[in-house]
Amino acid sequence: MNLYELSTPALVVDLDILERNLDRMAKLCREQGVGLRPHAKTHKTPEVARMQVGRGALGLTVAKVGEAEVMGEAGLDEILVAYPVMGSEKLSRLAALARERRVLVSLDSEITAQELSRASTLAGATIGVLVEFDSGYKRCGLEPGPRCAELAAKIEKLPGLKFRGLMTYFGSVWGTADERRAEAKRVTEPVARALEALAAARIPVEIVSGGSTPSAEFAGQIPGLTEIRPGTYVYNDLNTFYQGACNLEDCAVRVVTTLVSTAVPGHAIVDAGSKTLSSDRLSSGPATGFGRIVEAPDAPLVKLNEEHGHLDVTRSLHSFRVGETLTIIPNHVCTCVNMHDEVFLIRNGEVVGSWRIAARGKIR
Amino acid sequence: MNLYELSTPALVVDLDILERNLDRMAKLCREQGVGLRPHAKTHKTPEVARMQVGRGALGLTVAKVGEAEVMGEAGLDEILVAYPVMGSEKLSRLAALARERRVLVSLDSEITAQELSRASTLAGATIGVLVEFDSGYKRCGLEPGPRCAELAAKIEKLPGLKFRGLMTYFGSVWGTADERRAEAKRVTEPVARALEALAAARIPVEIVSGGSTPSAEFAGQIPGLTEIRPGTYVYNDLNTFYQGACNLEDCAVRVVTTLVSTAVPGHAIVDAGSKTLSSDRLSSGPATGFGRIVEAPDAPLVKLNEEHGHLDVTRSLHSFRVGETLTIIPNHVCTCVNMHDEVFLIRNGEVVGSWRIAARGKIR
Repeated sequence: MNLYELSTPALVVDLDILERNLDRMAKLCREQGVGLRPHAKTHKTPEVARMQVGRGALGLTVAKVGEAEVMGEAGLDEILVAYPVMGSEKLSRLAALARERRVLVSLDSEITAQELSRASTLAGATIGVLVEFDSGYKRCGLEPGPRCAELAAKIEKLPGLKFRGLMTYFGSVWGTADERRAEAKRVTEPVARALEALAAARIPVEIVSGGSTPSAEFAGQIPGLTEIRPGTYVYNDLNTFYQGACNLEDCAVRVVTTLVSTAVPGHAIVDAGSKTLSSDRLSSGPATGFGRIVEAPDAPLVKLNEEHGHLDVTRSLHSFRVGETLTIIPNHVCTCVNMHDEVFLIRNGEVVGSWRIAARGKIR
Repeated sequence: MNLYELSTPALVVDLDILERNLDRMAKLCREQGVGLRPHAKTHKTPEVARMQVGRGALGLTVAKVGEAEVMGEAGLDEILVAYPVMGSEKLSRLAALARERRVLVSLDSEITAQELSRASTLAGATIGVLVEFDSGYKRCGLEPGPRCAELAAKIEKLPGLKFRGLMTYFGSVWGTADERRAEAKRVTEPVARALEALAAARIPVEIVSGGSTPSAEFAGQIPGLTEIRPGTYVYNDLNTFYQGACNLEDCAVRVVTTLVSTAVPGHAIVDAGSKTLSSDRLSSGPATGFGRIVEAPDAPLVKLNEEHGHLDVTRSLHSFRVGETLTIIPNHVCTCVNMHDEVFLIRNGEVVGSWRIAARGKIR
């Protein structure tokens, strides 16, 4: 079956593009001497995680205990939950997983470390801990410096935990290669400050985890960084494109959609709305709407309702007709994939299989 | 268990508020002499649909064939798919359902009617059809007038279909009661034009379906309208509140969340991001962020990442601590519910059960 014959809306991934993206990032990390611990939030699919590990990834990153469970059950190992997990139900599940798989958790407060220690001890497990510091994104993470060393020292004393190193997030990187390089290099200073504090306290640091897709090519220029956690690179999306970190041909995922109405002049409606694409706007670049219509890029997807996508067709050369099939590159592939229970696999335009998005909906 | 003890993030619905909302809308429609065919897209849950029908709803509205199947299997009947369904796989499923349940579909083009007729005939079914006209929202729907009558006449000749009437959508209604009344009354004219065209062609019209939650209280003032399709009223949300169509105490759904980081000064991070709340902004009212923290309304939820909600705590009187539980009223409850596989049921703050959100993910 051709991808244009799928019942719509449908999420599709082009396997050739996916494999090329996986190869490129594996090579990029190898050449820079930086480890790759890809974030599974983008694909939420054990099959893709295995392809990543098969190309040399040293483990996986997830945001949720439920995602870690899915990946652990699928045989994947050394899973970093890059999130300060709080709450006894989730922590006891995480500790149970840590008896079967090597588990790392990032955190930035003593209370989180204590709760994690309690759960880990109760389960007879050991959980690795990374202390998160803030390198400018202002989300989670301590000020890089002595407070990181203080928390690391406390973690070293807590049973059931093993301090393994440091983690930070730098995702706000876009523009020309020079601009992205400058932004990635800006992170050098907070990384150095955090490392100096740990060195002063004589606490050995095994892992320093950072990065994101748009900063990946500059990871080797940040001294001390041992690994990065890009997620989006597997599929790419319009955000990555406008960040300057991929070409449109590198976008592996599209939503196949049917044009369902041309009744209102100047408008065309497709059966992909915010419950199919997500309502995420572009995080960078021009305000070009909610996705790019590959077959008619001159018809911007200007508005989404839950199940309706509104195309402005007033300046398009495409002749829109009810029943035709179109494909959309999403703004943000991570939240788009999260809307779907399955993804269809494409090679040369033909549907060759499907994967269940097994970690979708694992919100806890 | 108290709702603040739930593992987070968790979606909860207060049953007392839900029942009050259901009673109020049933009464509003009864008093105005207008039928109620509530849109199940908000709750996607057969249990709520049964409560609606139990209070006198004359059937259900859905947007997707998959939603119709879930509701049909749960025993609900006369289901309007308020969407111009296109695509043979979906149409054959819809026709199969139409042999078990009374099914209505809205459409605005001859090709959609022909495809529906083909599927219905093949299945030996009869599907009711509403011709959609545009009353100003500029999404789907023909210009109200002779084109509606022409399409109705064509539908009357197609096998497997039965023309039942007209449908329109008016959802962009907000402001003071006077402003909302004026906006609802503005719809009077296109409704009249569509009805006149059908009368001139001597085509009997059984159903004229319109409405939305914020316009429901004015439905009786639109001559000819036989029924309305509000969805959001069951749960309400910040949009409904800022539209002036409910009070905050009428918001039945909240997301229970845990505060996971206070490491960055001026910020606090909760474990509810765009994969829990949806990234929908407010459709009306002030730009107050991505949801309202009930326990600290002076701390706006200014930004969402996928799993992080960013609170600006610089002007809050609340003392935030890692591990505390907060609850959030979402901007848009329909897209928020769509992120969850289950909803926990609350009475007087205690968890008394849960429902599976059975039609979540039914994108086709």
